[in-house]
Amino acid sequence: MTHETDAATATPPCSLRARRLGIDTHHEPVVVLRADSPVVRAEGFEAHARIEVVGARASIVATLNILTSGELLGPDEVGLSEAAWRRLQPAADERLGFRFARPSDAMSHVRAKIFGSPLREGAFEAVIGDIVAGRLSNVEIAAFLVACAGGRMSPAEVTSLTRAMVHSGARMNWPQALVVDKHCIGGLPGNRTTPIVVSIVTALGLVMPKTSSRAITSPAGTADTVETITRVDLDLEQMRRVVDSEGGCMVWGGAMNMSPADDLLIRVERMLDLDSEAQLVASVLSKKAAAGSTHVVIDIPTGPTAKVRSPEQAQSLLRALGASARALDLKLVGLVTDGSQPVGRGVGPALEAHDVLRVLANHPQAPDDLRQRALDLAAAVIELGGLQSGAAARELAAQALADGRAWRKFQAICQAQGAFREPGVAPFQRPVPAPHAGRVQAIDNRLLARAAKLAGAPHAPTAGLLLHAHVGEHVERGQALFELHAESQGELDYALDFVRHHPAIVHLEQA
Amino acid sequence: MTHETDAATATPPCSLRARRLGIDTHHEPVVVLRADSPVVRAEGFEAHARIEVVGARASIVATLNILTSGELLGPDEVGLSEAAWRRLQPAADERLGFRFARPSDAMSHVRAKIFGSPLREGAFEAVIGDIVAGRLSNVEIAAFLVACAGGRMSPAEVTSLTRAMVHSGARMNWPQALVVDKHCIGGLPGNRTTPIVVSIVTALGLVMPKTSSRAITSPAGTADTVETITRVDLDLEQMRRVVDSEGGCMVWGGAMNMSPADDLLIRVERMLDLDSEAQLVASVLSKKAAAGSTHVVIDIPTGPTAKVRSPEQAQSLLRALGASARALDLKLVGLVTDGSQPVGRGVGPALEAHDVLRVLANHPQAPDDLRQRALDLAAAVIELGGLQSGAAARELAAQALADGRAWRKFQAICQAQGAFREPGVAPFQRPVPAPHAGRVQAIDNRLLARAAKLAGAPHAPTAGLLLHAHVGEHVERGQALFELHAESQGELDYALDFVRHHPAIVHLEQA
Repeated sequence: MTHETDAATATPPCSLRARRLGIDTHHEPVVVLRADSPVVRAEGFEAHARIEVVGARASIVATLNILTSGELLGPDEVGLSEAAWRRLQPAADERLGFRFARPSDAMSHVRAKIFGSPLREGAFEAVIGDIVAGRLSNVEIAAFLVACAGGRMSPAEVTSLTRAMVHSGARMNWPQALVVDKHCIGGLPGNRTTPIVVSIVTALGLVMPKTSSRAITSPAGTADTVETITRVDLDLEQMRRVVDSEGGCMVWGGAMNMSPADDLLIRVERMLDLDSEAQLVASVLSKKAAAGSTHVVIDIPTGPTAKVRSPEQAQSLLRALGASARALDLKLVGLVTDGSQPVGRGVGPALEAHDVLRVLANHPQAPDDLRQRALDLAAAVIELGGLQSGAAARELAAQALADGRAWRKFQAICQAQGAFREPGVAPFQRPVPAPHAGRVQAIDNRLLARAAKLAGAPHAPTAGLLLHAHVGEHVERGQALFELHAESQGELDYALDFVRHHPAIVHLEQA
Repeated sequence: MTHETDAATATPPCSLRARRLGIDTHHEPVVVLRADSPVVRAEGFEAHARIEVVGARASIVATLNILTSGELLGPDEVGLSEAAWRRLQPAADERLGFRFARPSDAMSHVRAKIFGSPLREGAFEAVIGDIVAGRLSNVEIAAFLVACAGGRMSPAEVTSLTRAMVHSGARMNWPQALVVDKHCIGGLPGNRTTPIVVSIVTALGLVMPKTSSRAITSPAGTADTVETITRVDLDLEQMRRVVDSEGGCMVWGGAMNMSPADDLLIRVERMLDLDSEAQLVASVLSKKAAAGSTHVVIDIPTGPTAKVRSPEQAQSLLRALGASARALDLKLVGLVTDGSQPVGRGVGPALEAHDVLRVLANHPQAPDDLRQRALDLAAAVIELGGLQSGAAARELAAQALADGRAWRKFQAICQAQGAFREPGVAPFQRPVPAPHAGRVQAIDNRLLARAAKLAGAPHAPTAGLLLHAHVGEHVERGQALFELHAESQGELDYALDFVRHHPAIVHLEQA
């Protein structure tokens, strides 16, 4: 607020001792001041004000809560949330000063965008920089996201936003001129093609230094799944050694600080349940550009309960991805794939790992839908990487899988990352029977994912579910539709209770 | 989030004892759960999740914070912020249950608006209803405000929003067919015309049951100023008796629950420093319609440091007000007034009250700018009320003021409201001298208001400042530009420090 700006130049008049409250408010720093504190009176602070907290090592902007009663704080104390404590790192007897936060330049850009002005790259740099520095509240980040949603971003703005997100974090560089990558837009349980694609294309000589995320809302991320087989928390140097020797890797990207704004934006998008095409494009491409990829295949599962709901939406997303990829000098191909039901049988880290291993090892019970999906994506990577095109590319992928080269490469990568081990199996299992005979008409990806999460996935690595019936198959009354897996009786019961209340998870047509 | 929706039907599996933390988070309820609590594990809750808290008397939706360390809570406890405590009112040994909050219907309307769909009245009712019920977080309210800002609301939508805001609260009804009102858009220190206008027009026989607000960001609201002279915290019955006997009143509207969404929306707008025309129109008109007014005069001070910055912005606002007022069957006239500098001499509750009393009592030192401004507005009310028009209306107003009828009516209303007393005078006063001779070229309304607030206004009723020089006047070096008034030495010093750092508060041209 303009009339509060200028107090920022005045010296903080009082100081208080820092007290760690142990409260996790995620990335938004919160401080608690007593209502009767001279700081609150002198500054005219009220609850939810954004105030600057000045410490010896750092100065942060935090959201204020006011203590109106109780003995949480002494008269000489200020309470800090975990995010505030981490950023300030106060010494044992350090005293902190307080003043109104200087209004952020970033927010003047956000307001300009709200009122219809297109933003230049410098404006996006300011907004993303302040988000990464923790200087914007969730309320302010929400305003930025909404101002940029609903088709209000030009292709040039999406590209600028993407560049700003890349610049805000670390960037990888690879000696090779051609570095391939793949990414799935998500929302489809069991669609764990990455370890198979990495194994096939690196066996064929392409370079694919794959970094993956852990689950945010899903029962398993690729990093969660691969972690049930080998180490994934490599640092950048360890990752480089694996890629040098094997041509590829499958590691967790979370510690590498690539496009750090992305996670913060996604958190606030989740609070609003907001899916914005512009943000999605910037999120995907910023991670790929930061990882040093040059050629990227995007898997876009499309179906009524997937993240992308309609072919029109998929085409629009593809166009937006293509336009910004060109501007960023990334070669990009998108595959719109069937997102009507889960892929494979397992849903949950170890359960999906079992599917992946069976496909790689050419096991007779390997799920064919996962195999075919992985081959389609590998073929697209092979074609984009210039090894072969069309049917020949797919043939090349299928051969590398069938003759065991992909399987040997997978094991070699795992060994290079630290070890190869068999994923575990959950101690508690319970089939969910069909209430009557009939053909499976539909499977609700979202409800199914929720059931797997309630059973404990991904924090319990062997938890989740095993799908026994796919769309189009006929089941008899009492036959298992799927099987819940859990690491504790309590979680199994809780997932069962949810399943009982949601018969529409697997929709059966009367026979 | 869709996949979490359905868990809401499951029974909360664990319960915890409520513990009052005494933390004021304003209207957003916050609960704190221990990270090791079975509730957090079983539900997969994370920081910032929106969860439903089920008590014996009420069930609320709250934002979750997670306690990761420290001894703030026992293993069997949940911590409640003041807003959560007020809404749940837990008994001494009451146990509370927890589950994911059912996604709000309101937010699906907000998302539709974000993606460009116009909203119908039912959608606004759902959003406003959830805001008043405390079911939307600040992040969600911010999304609504941004989705509706920047010219994205049609006149029909502004009208629907206004109606929804009226319906969300109490409505007053008056036996008279013609009930006049006035409202100032705000942002101009000292522009305290309301008590004068009420006194003039009720002396002339119009009915003006005026409710006013306390200051939100300014050094004084009309209710704060009138409270230094008489009681303003009347209930609806007491207010009715005053209006029955005197034809008008000057009371605080805050306890009457008219358009309760308005304050909540304004709080979040302030967090974003967002001024949206649509919200401003809905805010003003909803309060007027809820108060049962039929004829309303709007004062729109316009100037570079006022709330409305340009004549174009004033005209646009006037058109928007006019369109929605017609749809709501309110007769409305807007006056675009000079907002380039403060009105009168006092800034702060009692200091403004002294100006008002001098104008009413025809005191020789009464500030003429305030008198003229009040007469302009009173004339507009008289004309809209059908008593006289044009120059004759202003003549009527001037007569009622000059011959003491307005002054006697003011005193009668004060007596009917409880008492009449002289406002106090601050014990600490300090002139701020001109650094050199020269003509006053400009006064920054925002900085001046900030200085008055730092001196203690409005919580210290006699604090604020007294302006000694207006734009166009010549001052000598060392002559007082204004005088700071405070109720404590500390606040006086703090305001002085601010003033020293901001020589541009009063801008002097070199003589």
